[in-house]
Amino acid sequence: MLVDWPLDRLREYRPDRNEPDDFRAYWRNTLDQARSQAFPARFQPYDAGLVTVECWDVTFAGFGGHPVRGWFLTPRGATGPLPCVVEFIGYGGGRSLPLDWLHWSAAGYAHLVMDTRGQGSNGSLAGDTPDPAPVGGPAVTGFLTRGIADRDGYYYRRVFTDAVRAVETVREHPLVDPDRVVVAGGSQGGGIALAAAGLVEGLAAVVANVPFLCHYRRATEATGAAPYSELTTYLSVHRDAEERVFQTLSYFDGVNFAAHATAPALFSVGLRDAVCPPSTVFAAYNHYAGPRDIRVWPYNGHEGGAVRQRVEQIRFVGEALAGS
Amino acid sequence: MLVDWPLDRLREYRPDRNEPDDFRAYWRNTLDQARSQAFPARFQPYDAGLVTVECWDVTFAGFGGHPVRGWFLTPRGATGPLPCVVEFIGYGGGRSLPLDWLHWSAAGYAHLVMDTRGQGSNGSLAGDTPDPAPVGGPAVTGFLTRGIADRDGYYYRRVFTDAVRAVETVREHPLVDPDRVVVAGGSQGGGIALAAAGLVEGLAAVVANVPFLCHYRRATEATGAAPYSELTTYLSVHRDAEERVFQTLSYFDGVNFAAHATAPALFSVGLRDAVCPPSTVFAAYNHYAGPRDIRVWPYNGHEGGAVRQRVEQIRFVGEALAGS
Amino acid sequence: MLVDWPLDRLREYRPDRNEPDDFRAYWRNTLDQARSQAFPARFQPYDAGLVTVECWDVTFAGFGGHPVRGWFLTPRGATGPLPCVVEFIGYGGGRSLPLDWLHWSAAGYAHLVMDTRGQGSNGSLAGDTPDPAPVGGPAVTGFLTRGIADRDGYYYRRVFTDAVRAVETVREHPLVDPDRVVVAGGSQGGGIALAAAGLVEGLAAVVANVPFLCHYRRATEATGAAPYSELTTYLSVHRDAEERVFQTLSYFDGVNFAAHATAPALFSVGLRDAVCPPSTVFAAYNHYAGPRDIRVWPYNGHEGGAVRQRVEQIRFVGEALAGS
Amino acid sequence: MLVDWPLDRLREYRPDRNEPDDFRAYWRNTLDQARSQAFPARFQPYDAGLVTVECWDVTFAGFGGHPVRGWFLTPRGATGPLPCVVEFIGYGGGRSLPLDWLHWSAAGYAHLVMDTRGQGSNGSLAGDTPDPAPVGGPAVTGFLTRGIADRDGYYYRRVFTDAVRAVETVREHPLVDPDRVVVAGGSQGGGIALAAAGLVEGLAAVVANVPFLCHYRRATEATGAAPYSELTTYLSVHRDAEERVFQTLSYFDGVNFAAHATAPALFSVGLRDAVCPPSTVFAAYNHYAGPRDIRVWPYNGHEGGAVRQRVEQIRFVGEALAGS
Amino acid sequence: MLVDWPLDRLREYRPDRNEPDDFRAYWRNTLDQARSQAFPARFQPYDAGLVTVECWDVTFAGFGGHPVRGWFLTPRGATGPLPCVVEFIGYGGGRSLPLDWLHWSAAGYAHLVMDTRGQGSNGSLAGDTPDPAPVGGPAVTGFLTRGIADRDGYYYRRVFTDAVRAVETVREHPLVDPDRVVVAGGSQGGGIALAAAGLVEGLAAVVANVPFLCHYRRATEATGAAPYSELTTYLSVHRDAEERVFQTLSYFDGVNFAAHATAPALFSVGLRDAVCPPSTVFAAYNHYAGPRDIRVWPYNGHEGGAVRQRVEQIRFVGEALAGS
Amino acid sequence: MLVDWPLDRLREYRPDRNEPDDFRAYWRNTLDQARSQAFPARFQPYDAGLVTVECWDVTFAGFGGHPVRGWFLTPRGATGPLPCVVEFIGYGGGRSLPLDWLHWSAAGYAHLVMDTRGQGSNGSLAGDTPDPAPVGGPAVTGFLTRGIADRDGYYYRRVFTDAVRAVETVREHPLVDPDRVVVAGGSQGGGIALAAAGLVEGLAAVVANVPFLCHYRRATEATGAAPYSELTTYLSVHRDAEERVFQTLSYFDGVNFAAHATAPALFSVGLRDAVCPPSTVFAAYNHYAGPRDIRVWPYNGHEGGAVRQRVEQIRFVGEALAGS
Repeated sequence: MLVDWPLDRLREYRPDRNEPDDFRAYWRNTLDQARSQAFPARFQPYDAGLVTVECWDVTFAGFGGHPVRGWFLTPRGATGPLPCVVEFIGYGGGRSLPLDWLHWSAAGYAHLVMDTRGQGSNGSLAGDTPDPAPVGGPAVTGFLTRGIADRDGYYYRRVFTDAVRAVETVREHPLVDPDRVVVAGGSQGGGIALAAAGLVEGLAAVVANVPFLCHYRRATEATGAAPYSELTTYLSVHRDAEERVFQTLSYFDGVNFAAHATAPALFSVGLRDAVCPPSTVFAAYNHYAGPRDIRVWPYNGHEGGAVRQRVEQIRFVGEALAGS
Repeated sequence: MLVDWPLDRLREYRPDRNEPDDFRAYWRNTLDQARSQAFPARFQPYDAGLVTVECWDVTFAGFGGHPVRGWFLTPRGATGPLPCVVEFIGYGGGRSLPLDWLHWSAAGYAHLVMDTRGQGSNGSLAGDTPDPAPVGGPAVTGFLTRGIADRDGYYYRRVFTDAVRAVETVREHPLVDPDRVVVAGGSQGGGIALAAAGLVEGLAAVVANVPFLCHYRRATEATGAAPYSELTTYLSVHRDAEERVFQTLSYFDGVNFAAHATAPALFSVGLRDAVCPPSTVFAAYNHYAGPRDIRVWPYNGHEGGAVRQRVEQIRFVGEALAGS
Repeated sequence: MLVDWPLDRLREYRPDRNEPDDFRAYWRNTLDQARSQAFPARFQPYDAGLVTVECWDVTFAGFGGHPVRGWFLTPRGATGPLPCVVEFIGYGGGRSLPLDWLHWSAAGYAHLVMDTRGQGSNGSLAGDTPDPAPVGGPAVTGFLTRGIADRDGYYYRRVFTDAVRAVETVREHPLVDPDRVVVAGGSQGGGIALAAAGLVEGLAAVVANVPFLCHYRRATEATGAAPYSELTTYLSVHRDAEERVFQTLSYFDGVNFAAHATAPALFSVGLRDAVCPPSTVFAAYNHYAGPRDIRVWPYNGHEGGAVRQRVEQIRFVGEALAGS
Repeated sequence: MLVDWPLDRLREYRPDRNEPDDFRAYWRNTLDQARSQAFPARFQPYDAGLVTVECWDVTFAGFGGHPVRGWFLTPRGATGPLPCVVEFIGYGGGRSLPLDWLHWSAAGYAHLVMDTRGQGSNGSLAGDTPDPAPVGGPAVTGFLTRGIADRDGYYYRRVFTDAVRAVETVREHPLVDPDRVVVAGGSQGGGIALAAAGLVEGLAAVVANVPFLCHYRRATEATGAAPYSELTTYLSVHRDAEERVFQTLSYFDGVNFAAHATAPALFSVGLRDAVCPPSTVFAAYNHYAGPRDIRVWPYNGHEGGAVRQRVEQIRFVGEALAGS
Repeated sequence: MLVDWPLDRLREYRPDRNEPDDFRAYWRNTLDQARSQAFPARFQPYDAGLVTVECWDVTFAGFGGHPVRGWFLTPRGATGPLPCVVEFIGYGGGRSLPLDWLHWSAAGYAHLVMDTRGQGSNGSLAGDTPDPAPVGGPAVTGFLTRGIADRDGYYYRRVFTDAVRAVETVREHPLVDPDRVVVAGGSQGGGIALAAAGLVEGLAAVVANVPFLCHYRRATEATGAAPYSELTTYLSVHRDAEERVFQTLSYFDGVNFAAHATAPALFSVGLRDAVCPPSTVFAAYNHYAGPRDIRVWPYNGHEGGAVRQRVEQIRFVGEALAGS
Repeated sequence: MLVDWPLDRLREYRPDRNEPDDFRAYWRNTLDQARSQAFPARFQPYDAGLVTVECWDVTFAGFGGHPVRGWFLTPRGATGPLPCVVEFIGYGGGRSLPLDWLHWSAAGYAHLVMDTRGQGSNGSLAGDTPDPAPVGGPAVTGFLTRGIADRDGYYYRRVFTDAVRAVETVREHPLVDPDRVVVAGGSQGGGIALAAAGLVEGLAAVVANVPFLCHYRRATEATGAAPYSELTTYLSVHRDAEERVFQTLSYFDGVNFAAHATAPALFSVGLRDAVCPPSTVFAAYNHYAGPRDIRVWPYNGHEGGAVRQRVEQIRFVGEALAGS
């Protein structure tokens, strides 16, 4: 059954944004600080037993100069400069092994898969990147409320900074054409991609599938499903924290990042998605400041278009690059 | 928690087999008949937008001369003759799109993914192959009891025949080395691979991950989970059918196919797998007549080793081919 | 809690119908073809160990001349011509044994219970009628999407034709008064009864309890429960099939059959019925072209009025026959 | 999956019984007292709109002289004396309407369906008999622990007494042959039938399908399902009550009633029945003191043989009566 | 997610009340009758092993002169007269032991915890008070429909009368100041407190947290959760009982009691409370005739403010007493 | 139903322990380091609005000199030296407010409730203590696998050290008699109490209710419930980590702490406890090196004896202190 408003209403839903005055300054400072702590990225060749791709085990400096892992894959024998997709991972997953990430290199792209710090122990995708920062105050098990009492200690501040640093890392790689870098992801990965889209200049394209991390307040009203439920749980226990929490979140809302983005973007949404309710996705989509398109999957939940969306992504990115 | 016996007991579990006297004759006749109805396979080039692989949309003649679909992928530019993996799909899934099947070609193999007739509408992998045979008598929704009242009309007779025909199809392909064909799959795909292993001569290797379709009677005792539960449901409704059902199944039991197999085989099992309980997997493994190894994942359920098992498969198949 | 709109809104809900131009021609041809393939029905006496009823094991020719089973019961010693109720069964059930069908003969009617082809393995009512037609393309496990890609191969084309043939069968029985034939059923049986009501001339009455198979598009929006969920699942996997699917369904929608019906009809609906949401029932009811009444059970789910509805049915049918 | 021990072990399971010394005296006194409070039964003709059966709305004096309701059905026109089945109802259900109880009269029997006092509000079968006795001490919602602190106030003391009084009531009816009275029921009804079997002399047959109310202590160990779980819940809250509770229950255990029964009995059991675990059924069966048989349904849960068991009942009762 | 209307709408929701003409007379007679059957309350010293409080095991005469149990606690050494809180317990719970009830005496109050007759076997709080009145007609397992066919036999008639008697009991205790008696409770206890608020003159304050037993008809529409679901279940089985049931309930509706209350009241509500939906709470709150305040917990379910609400209660009661 | 072995077997279950050679040295070093980083504890008077107790908001130095919060309560007016109970909290909970912790001071004890670092956002008990240490490597959401790859960074190293420091803190408080300090807790709190029992000299008594954190390997085999399931999940994702994980855990196993404890201990266990399976509790109990007793609750799950166990605790501790 439909889990949110009818499509007509969704298409017109463009709620007021709540962007802090110092939003841009805050992020400029955050990123500058990270850059100042960065070490040179390491690309260590990795034998995945594959003949059509070359793999590297990547370590680059993320937030706080913390080492962040990833896989870098290229079509074997490609000489570059290649367009490059930087991909972010869904909630709970980690970078796993290169075998799980063959699609973009098969399509002719350099491909960096960024491990999400601290994640990669819950599902099928194991992770390798610790989060050396403390959790901070008490938090709901999960990641959405880690450090939420304070914008500076909030977990996604570190993750979004890692994402920007990932883009900067590939841009310096000799096989990559720095003008043809794409950010992409689904669910949490889509939310991270939106953050990168709002924080990085000159991206060639953005792909945000069924994005998480958008329009938090509406999310708590529209769904009881995890992981947005972590937020509700936190507020149900820490009964005085509401104002502070939403103030923190205003620095990390995909709706606000969307309003600062300029690269062509492809969104997707499932009208029966109770995990990332359609109204939260359209809130970001309708505020997206660059060229934008959205693929609506009317009978799907959080899986959205699945492999069909992958095909559309490849086509969309190809056309965006051709047009750029 | 553990869902079946302790590992020590599992390793020694080799139950009596119940093979019909005419098991081999039955299958010889079945396969001969299918071959007599076969039309030449079609390999139609398919543009999947990929640069590292070449793809073909395959149609070959399965049971009854029915057209069965598949994808054929090779490393782009490979000239062959290549070793080839014929892969069978888990319960409910279909061939989807080539983007979902990049791993074996990336590892340097020709790769045929066989659509499972009638399946591919329930999960994330869409299918394209109708099953033109009638369901036959009333059956539990699902596939396990379709036509189960009669060995000749049983659904898996058609599927297993399709599988043998898939092997025969790739063996005739100019890019494939017919002496280096491997059958592989997980869950239902693993059960189909075991059937092929028992029915086809001269395979180079067999991979059966957490295989389904083995030791049915034990399965109904050891688990209440789908899809083995379809069998229990059928017998709970058709209260006189027990003898007839298990007689039919004796022609389709992975335990019996295993006893006729000779190629080196890699099994895997999850000790917390309530879908395909470990005792049913070890029953087949311990009767396997060829060289055999098994990877035990002590903390996993039906996902078994997931990508880690994929890595092991590639290594195992590589070594098997090197040794052959 | 209420699962759909308030009763006031439901009573006025009469959505636009989507009837294909050739709806009547399509069905005329379908039925003519079935009649042309028919063999004479067989009524074999059956000893159910009962003293107040006589039973026959019935086999009549349904769609494609396929043999369809049923039970025929009459009050023992009745000489006729009797009014006759043709009853259709709920989703998943089969004809079971005569002991399960004593109510209409006890009330003085001849009673034909039609087995639903292919069903009768999932619940408490075993079935005996195979569906000799192939499933056709991949389908969700269940019956609602079998052959849905093509109106000619759609499962319910066969079932609805069987239903018409069942009426024609009893009309030729010497104990039955052909002018006093009633069609009845609940849930799927109610949907089939509506189809028969729209396709058969001269019925004496129609009983459609909590009918399934009505207003499919609304159903996918209003409920996530089985079996309407099969439709959503199908469309979630076969992402291009929407138009084709709803075109097929327009030939099989209770809303359209209702608009062609003329016999007096008794509907029922449960306002907390998440299986067949009230709006889908009222859509058919409000389009019903003959005399009509509906029994609203405000606190019930899909069970509707249960035995209380049975009592009302007997009263309604008695009055309809008295009035005819 | 199997929910209890393997069948071999079940067949030999005959646990020690724990029968109080004054078991027989207790029940003699209880029944004598009820008889002394009895008023003459009333059989009021009831128009159920049926032509093959005659119906009476029955009120007879149960425990404490409390009025207990029931339906009495006979094949219309039967002159008697008829054999008569007294039927008891499953947990939560009430007598509903005659339309729900056509099977025994259809088979040629007089049939009394006894309402279970206080029940008939939870499921599909509405009840009409209040329980005028107080619940007594705090009890788990449900019936199993009502008054359990004291054998004299225990709920099933009243129900079992009602059951004996029901038999005595039909024995005095002019249409009934008092030497051919059968007690029957399933689940709770089977447990009540066992109680009647142990308390009433000269019954012609006993039918106890998947009986409840047997071997309580084992039940709390073997299942967590309702309604036996009410007992566990009670003991989990009233932590000092264990000895007292099991002392009360020793007067109400089907195992003890079975040991005093003499009429031929047909039991049934489902090997996957988590509601009334097989070991509790076999405990009663293996202590049954009269001629006995059991129908094992290996693939069924609490539904046991369903209509198939009904057919067997009719056959068994017919043979028992023929033999008597 | 939000489970009822938005807060704005809730704040204005003041539905028509349905108060019977003889509401006040009915309760006057009921209470007068109970008083005429009362025996003197017993306060038996109880050694709970505690040093800061004194405890008494209380037995007072409730409805029908039935003995009702409770605990009476005072700060050890207090000489009085003390303000006193009479507390009622949530659904299913009993008085447990004094260790569970230390908060009000710790805050300086005399404290009577009233056992709820018949309850205290389902959860963590054991009860000791039988309900000597019969259940009456068939009822859904639970308490909400016990005796619901008749206002005089309805379960909550006895409980509400017990509550009034509890207040009268403490008012006569030498340590208690009868002008400073407060009634309090959460969920069912809140509903009972509202009843007492409407029936007792001169209370000093009322605390009704997330109250149950308010606005029954809306409750059946707004939630499917227990215990309001007992009402829906009853009406789903007893299909003719609707009018009678709601007539009975009109004598026991918190909305009506609220309209007769005069003492200052503190309500609380959880906007995600599916057990006692916010609209039912606001219906009572908005009809409350005395000074009133409500604490809205926007992210909480039925737990409402939990310990935070306890702190607010203590503060509110302290201020109310200071102001009186 | 029973969830583990029968009681007889449990009573004798004393599995081999796996204690590292440097277990004692490891902990000595860990604790010495913490002591070296400690700052003087702060006891800030807190107005909880209570008259029978005095409250202090406590901050003491735990592991790494990190500030750990707690509440300190004494019977108002007590002059000491008082016996003191240090209480640890169940999984997920925090120190909440003093109103939730009145029992020990009511019984005449000084009482320190230690906040569990990082916890207190998931349930009803809010926490106030951040965990300033990083989570370390990827971990399952929850606490059981935080830092599990390395004994030095393991989460419970910090918690257990906090617990020892809590005891040391109260021993220095002027109102506390350092020779009469008791450690107590349930579930996680019971596991922490066992750790303290093994690490602290001269405790007067130990109370470990249904303790968690014991015999981890058995726990993963015996239950699939949270939070032990976090361990299984971790090992299902990090498939090479088994040896390392269990090596880490050998430093944190209640079974090993029990073997070093000397103070009189009261355990409790619920035979239907699927959260902390009885075999894991008995493993610790049967290795406990001091005087020991256990209260078995045969019909309870993880709630164990609840308030009844509280009463027993107070009695046990009273006797232990009297005897010491």
